[in-house]
Amino acid sequence: MTSSRSLYHAAELRPLLQPRSVAIVDFSSKPGSFGARTAQNLADSGAEVWVVNPKRAAEGSPKVLATVEELPGPVDCAIIAVPRDAVQEVAQACARKGIRGAIVYASGYAETGQAEHRRLQEQLTALARQTGMHILGPNCIGILSDGGRLRLTFAEAPELQHARPVSIGLVSQSGGLGLALAQSARHGYAFSHVLTAGNSCDVDVADQVAYLAEDPHCKVIACLFEGMADPQRLLEAGRRAARAGKPVIVHKLATGEEGTQAAMSHTGSLAGSAAVYRAAFESAGFIEVDDFEALIETAAFFAKAGRPRSPGVAALSTSGGATIMVADKAELHQVALPQPPAEVTALLRSHIPEFGSARNPCDVTAQILGNPQSLPECARAMLASDVYGALVLPHPYAYAPGTQRLLALEAVGRDSGKPICCVWLSQWLDGPGAIEVEASPHLALFRSIDRCMATLRAWHLYGQRMARQAGPGSRLSDPAAAQVFAKEAGAGTTLTESASKRVLGAYGVPVVPERLVQSANAAVDAAEGFGYPVVLKVQSADIPHKTEAGGVRLDLRSGEAVRDAYRAILDSARAHSPDARIDGLLVQPMIRRDLELIVGGRRDPLFGPIVVVGLGGIFVELLKDSTVALAPVSPSQAREMLDRLRGRALLDGFRGMPAADIGEVSAAVARVSELLADHADTIDELDVNPLVISDGRTVAVDALIALRTAPVSVDDAESQRPQATHIT
Amino acid sequence: MTSSRSLYHAAELRPLLQPRSVAIVDFSSKPGSFGARTAQNLADSGAEVWVVNPKRAAEGSPKVLATVEELPGPVDCAIIAVPRDAVQEVAQACARKGIRGAIVYASGYAETGQAEHRRLQEQLTALARQTGMHILGPNCIGILSDGGRLRLTFAEAPELQHARPVSIGLVSQSGGLGLALAQSARHGYAFSHVLTAGNSCDVDVADQVAYLAEDPHCKVIACLFEGMADPQRLLEAGRRAARAGKPVIVHKLATGEEGTQAAMSHTGSLAGSAAVYRAAFESAGFIEVDDFEALIETAAFFAKAGRPRSPGVAALSTSGGATIMVADKAELHQVALPQPPAEVTALLRSHIPEFGSARNPCDVTAQILGNPQSLPECARAMLASDVYGALVLPHPYAYAPGTQRLLALEAVGRDSGKPICCVWLSQWLDGPGAIEVEASPHLALFRSIDRCMATLRAWHLYGQRMARQAGPGSRLSDPAAAQVFAKEAGAGTTLTESASKRVLGAYGVPVVPERLVQSANAAVDAAEGFGYPVVLKVQSADIPHKTEAGGVRLDLRSGEAVRDAYRAILDSARAHSPDARIDGLLVQPMIRRDLELIVGGRRDPLFGPIVVVGLGGIFVELLKDSTVALAPVSPSQAREMLDRLRGRALLDGFRGMPAADIGEVSAAVARVSELLADHADTIDELDVNPLVISDGRTVAVDALIALRTAPVSVDDAESQRPQATHIT
Repeated sequence: MTSSRSLYHAAELRPLLQPRSVAIVDFSSKPGSFGARTAQNLADSGAEVWVVNPKRAAEGSPKVLATVEELPGPVDCAIIAVPRDAVQEVAQACARKGIRGAIVYASGYAETGQAEHRRLQEQLTALARQTGMHILGPNCIGILSDGGRLRLTFAEAPELQHARPVSIGLVSQSGGLGLALAQSARHGYAFSHVLTAGNSCDVDVADQVAYLAEDPHCKVIACLFEGMADPQRLLEAGRRAARAGKPVIVHKLATGEEGTQAAMSHTGSLAGSAAVYRAAFESAGFIEVDDFEALIETAAFFAKAGRPRSPGVAALSTSGGATIMVADKAELHQVALPQPPAEVTALLRSHIPEFGSARNPCDVTAQILGNPQSLPECARAMLASDVYGALVLPHPYAYAPGTQRLLALEAVGRDSGKPICCVWLSQWLDGPGAIEVEASPHLALFRSIDRCMATLRAWHLYGQRMARQAGPGSRLSDPAAAQVFAKEAGAGTTLTESASKRVLGAYGVPVVPERLVQSANAAVDAAEGFGYPVVLKVQSADIPHKTEAGGVRLDLRSGEAVRDAYRAILDSARAHSPDARIDGLLVQPMIRRDLELIVGGRRDPLFGPIVVVGLGGIFVELLKDSTVALAPVSPSQAREMLDRLRGRALLDGFRGMPAADIGEVSAAVARVSELLADHADTIDELDVNPLVISDGRTVAVDALIALRTAPVSVDDAESQRPQATHIT
Repeated sequence: MTSSRSLYHAAELRPLLQPRSVAIVDFSSKPGSFGARTAQNLADSGAEVWVVNPKRAAEGSPKVLATVEELPGPVDCAIIAVPRDAVQEVAQACARKGIRGAIVYASGYAETGQAEHRRLQEQLTALARQTGMHILGPNCIGILSDGGRLRLTFAEAPELQHARPVSIGLVSQSGGLGLALAQSARHGYAFSHVLTAGNSCDVDVADQVAYLAEDPHCKVIACLFEGMADPQRLLEAGRRAARAGKPVIVHKLATGEEGTQAAMSHTGSLAGSAAVYRAAFESAGFIEVDDFEALIETAAFFAKAGRPRSPGVAALSTSGGATIMVADKAELHQVALPQPPAEVTALLRSHIPEFGSARNPCDVTAQILGNPQSLPECARAMLASDVYGALVLPHPYAYAPGTQRLLALEAVGRDSGKPICCVWLSQWLDGPGAIEVEASPHLALFRSIDRCMATLRAWHLYGQRMARQAGPGSRLSDPAAAQVFAKEAGAGTTLTESASKRVLGAYGVPVVPERLVQSANAAVDAAEGFGYPVVLKVQSADIPHKTEAGGVRLDLRSGEAVRDAYRAILDSARAHSPDARIDGLLVQPMIRRDLELIVGGRRDPLFGPIVVVGLGGIFVELLKDSTVALAPVSPSQAREMLDRLRGRALLDGFRGMPAADIGEVSAAVARVSELLADHADTIDELDVNPLVISDGRTVAVDALIALRTAPVSVDDAESQRPQATHIT
């Protein structure tokens, strides 16, 4: 990780993001100039607005000045709407004046990819850091703030609904896409802010999320972003939001795997960048959505929904076909649609004709036309039950009577404190009623059954995660284990199998026992100590790929076989690597391999230590079936990682194989993750391959730890080698 | 398969679905009655409308009569809007009058699940079959026809755009969901028909699809359906549509696996009902969509798109962020975004500023504001290239200038003959411009990037399928192979391994050689003939599970080992099944098993013979990694089945294993499918398990064919058994 500045405090950013006084600096006298458009946008904002424009100063308006210096005092925020090549000078003048924030519209900086333009941007960064004037941009479209009253932008931005209890704070790295999303205000969503970041020479998406975490009008944060040099700051901002009880919904662009470094070795390469981002978002408690179109819909649901009180979902419709579709998608997204208890069924029956369905999903049928009260009555009956934490109501028609039926449910939502999700099946997408339903704090509106169910699933997982975070705290680090690592790490850039396993053993990972021997007799002694069959392996830091060097013999069942193997291994190894320094041969008991896992990790350039787990063989190599998390993980988090493997059922035993002890496997993964986290600056890559399930027990059979740099000189490393190196 | 009636001819259904004269039969005098609403809907239809209503006949209107009998002649279609218990009598009167079609609104028939109501429906079916009066319903909401001019429904249905060249014909089993989808007419889609089917006592969804296949105004068919007793008729209707060059887009409800029969054995159980439906849709050339919301959007695209001329897609946007999202989703859906050739790049460069991107996806940037012609010029340059078959254009803002920019692309679409897909990123879903874009025959509108890319992928696959169907025809059946089957099938309800493999061999599937022996000496002779190692297996029709009975010994490497195994197998088998009739022991050469597949099939109750293929071991058992198709399949279709397996790469060799000959594997699967198809009425289930890849060659090692019924008596079967049954 690069060293990174910490997040700005909300109070520091308030002059920039919620200014009470603004100076618009513009050199153009055209009516459609960026400065003129900004002044129009701010006309009714309530902020004090000055214009600095040398071409218009002669007009005589008391609020139009020729230079920044003429401002009577430091305004909160300067909007710098001048051409790129004049920006630096204007920004310097603003900083000298004591202005606390500045928004820079001009393009032609780092986004061109050219060195000279990048340098121009770095000058702005330097100015911000030296003067404490926070800069948003360059290449920034501006922001909407204060529930839409403050429109600090040149763009023709949609009117926002003013702040209401369910307001969404939107943060978008892309200005264009941010304003595209803000158009959803047209159909009822309330936004507290629409913050865009542009090139982020100073203030960035992470600062903006952190700012919204402390803003009293923002109830939920929606974040659209592409990537950043130091995304750890975004995670930290997310943690602040979590502490403030605000869900963060994120859609990350640029998820394609094409750009992933192809050079990463084995376990490390299992985790592409998209997977690592996903793991990072999860560690920060973000709710990630896979579609741009889902971002605001999901945020609005979370703003209204509160915490889930039961994972059961009730479904109710006037259309039998719609209830079938709800059931299909619920099954797909693993959302439970439990049957109602008897007393609820009885109530449903009293409202529904015999050709309806007094079950869940409940088909109240078109008789609703003559009996409109039956819909809210059935909804009330279902949501009164502890079995249900939410209600889904597919709604086929966009017309006035249907709207009245939906709004009649508002009171049921309010009284039950459980969200009611209306799914707008009408293809008249903004048709009558949509705005009223979306504006209700008790009704969430979805325009896709699939997305509704995906969101409910995410909501349940979010609830579980929040409940867990209230549980016991993090691990205790073990100084003794760390010392074992420090000692072994002295020996070079790659730890031998033995050394790697000593470290793992110190961290509490069960490892296969072994003895290092330097003669055939000693090998036989060791074998007889362990009991046959045994395995012999060459031990040399210079031969990391033992099998290829003919350095491994399995399933040796007698002293004679051990002697033969001893000689054969030495011959092969010497033939393969004549210059290799051979420490001796390892003797290990041959253990039954019912199932193999691979556990490992590496130092991710963006997120630091990550841990990866997968099933061995075809699973990781062919099916790419692995899960990633930021290290360290707790044993219960490790268990969730295992649960996400497609081949998970193998751990429960398959074709007569004894089941693994999941607690033991989870613990081993957690221990490996702690090792990775404790030595994040030292370990480059770690592989436990395989971690074997043998008769139900978990044991690391082979391991390799590669270090980032040799922390000690070669001479020192030599002295750490085993003393007896006379190999017979 | 139940015997099923064939599809009605379009001409037979025209009086029902496109009547020129209508009689509305209603017993209610209320203004809001179903009959009265229907009459309102038909007011400006151009059809001659009679009302039969005894309560209103006294009003004196010449078009209002008291009884059906009073009608001056047979109208084309009667709309029976009377209560259920009066329906049968009215329907009989209509039939007597010579009326050719009838729509029945009343509910309370088979959908209640009650026997008496089912019987009422059967009476209507019988009437239709006896009189030739085609009946739609009961429990039917009605239809919209003739581009929306004919509104044969009581429902408050949306106005349709009148038929245009790109009209969609919609068929929906559910009336409510059909009308929900028809609301998309509000934003520009043109429908030729909205046909609903209700309980389908006579005319059903399949008849309606077949009708639309021949309707000159319908260009593409969208079909929403839940399920039917005889879906083969729907496939036949689909084939008619394909012959007419009309794509059929289908969304099937009730895809959940819960209802799938759990009792099916092994290979059969690999194919759940949803998978079989999918296979069936594919065989009929349907384009299946997974979301209700995608149905009309996809249909509209196919109506406009024609056939793909290149799989390459060009993307163009004013927003850099949007181009990233397009690239993400293209990668997800395997849609190629190839780079432009040099001459196109040069053209792009001439229109795009340096901070834009003259690549694909192409970012023309917001400079478009000052240079609006650059967008159509870039689009034209890209679509002029053979590299591209379609253009995707994400559109962030719903406002008037943006609309003009999109409509400026219409000419580019028209001139190039390639579809331009506008993706409506604005969250103002029906905002300005949407209707104009959707109404254009050269611009397709999507409201989701994901769906746009999924549709383009489906379009490319559809194009490939259409191109293939123009290729060489179907297989020749082999009478000699069928005779071998007939002979072996005489022996009982389950064929022995030997008999099953003889049949497979006759069909051209490579099988492992074997000899049936009745003494240990003969076993040794056979083994020496094949060469060691060999396998010994018990052969008995009474012991289908040989391994469980101790009836298999592998890897026998000497005469001694063969003798020992011979005795041991006989002892085990006799201990396990004392009454089993043992034919002898099979001797087979032991072949190397690099990879195992399972190929099999069964007689699906809805679709007849299906073939299933999967990789052995964890793949089918744990990961459910199998593919299904209706039998027979051609070798190239079999190859596509293999290509869809998640573990497909194993066939190319893995960890040093030699690659399989894909042509040989595909041929084996095709041959098995022919066997299943040739004897669809006889074979209940067939398993080739395993089909082994051995040193690159494909060979069936074990097989079992279970027959539906014993076609001959037990005595006959006995006489077919091998003569020598003296086992030493």
